[in-house]
Amino acid sequence: MEHILQKQLQFLIEIDKLKTIQRKTKIVSDTRLENDAEHSWHLAVMALILSGHANEEVDVFKVVKMLLIHDLVEIDAGDTFVYDTAANEDKHEREMQAAQRIFGLLPREQGEEIMNLWLEFERKESNEARFAASLDRLHPILHNYYNEGDTWRTYQITSEQILKRNSEIGDGSTTLWAYTQQLVHNSIARGYVQE
Amino acid sequence: MEHILQKQLQFLIEIDKLKTIQRKTKIVSDTRLENDAEHSWHLAVMALILSGHANEEVDVFKVVKMLLIHDLVEIDAGDTFVYDTAANEDKHEREMQAAQRIFGLLPREQGEEIMNLWLEFERKESNEARFAASLDRLHPILHNYYNEGDTWRTYQITSEQILKRNSEIGDGSTTLWAYTQQLVHNSIARGYVQE
Repeated sequence: MEHILQKQLQFLIEIDKLKTIQRKTKIVSDTRLENDAEHSWHLAVMALILSGHANEEVDVFKVVKMLLIHDLVEIDAGDTFVYDTAANEDKHEREMQAAQRIFGLLPREQGEEIMNLWLEFERKESNEARFAASLDRLHPILHNYYNEGDTWRTYQITSEQILKRNSEIGDGSTTLWAYTQQLVHNSIARGYVQE
Repeated sequence: MEHILQKQLQFLIEIDKLKTIQRKTKIVSDTRLENDAEHSWHLAVMALILSGHANEEVDVFKVVKMLLIHDLVEIDAGDTFVYDTAANEDKHEREMQAAQRIFGLLPREQGEEIMNLWLEFERKESNEARFAASLDRLHPILHNYYNEGDTWRTYQITSEQILKRNSEIGDGSTTLWAYTQQLVHNSIARGYVQE
């Protein structure tokens, strides 16, 4: 028991680093960038509240677990900007190495469970993974809408790029994808993003 | 559907403010104070990893849900320092008003569900609530141990205060309480805290 607890706590202290991984999106309530830990918390609550809009029946706990752990690999691999095509090419390889190191800190069975959850999320193999991915994509768009397009302006992202890169929101939730498209169109009208 | 989604999103944008509520504890990986959103994320992952140490069988999803929402009331009521006896006197009243406003943004049924979860946590009425409270108490002690007693030194907290104020960790997990006592004794030996 002592040995198991030590490994678990070592993992729990290691993942504190997620609080230092900055994203490209600002929080809504302040002018600073969001970090991965806050983002993961927000997504987990979104899953609790929005699961009724998933296209298929989902095990909400599984969605929440995926979202809580989905960005841990960025402790080693860093945040890869969704619109950075070059960085996305070797993203999976960098993240797989990170997963092995970080999840490997846990007792074997728990480490395997978290690894399988993460792989299922990455491969979008299940209803839960597809719905979790929808929320992960919707979240920065929501923030940008309330931040008057901050990231989109900084990186000169067009509405076409947003709609193309995020269409998989519809794979998890047709309702949330319809809502996203509406947000993007409103953002064009308000001058938050270029067409 | 449209109307329900609007209310849900209004709630989800409102709770972004949790990212701006500062705690008294620093994160482990940097010298800045932790915010409530990061803290809630860390606790939810702790619940996933440490649930095997709970004294009684617990519904882990319920524990996770409680921990994800337990601090939302601090958006209005602020963070009340666990060792501040005066501020803890009217804490419940201030937090109850906050709960009514914030959970009241949600569609009625969901708002009631979150309110009931929060009340169950506050009243420590169930195995889940007691285990969730254990993790909530253990978390800042862990951080302080790795920060060489930062909060304890700043606010001149003694080891006696720590052990007295946090003994309820044992109500949720005898194992984690034994571990906490060991951490506090090591902290005395290392000079992180005064006896």
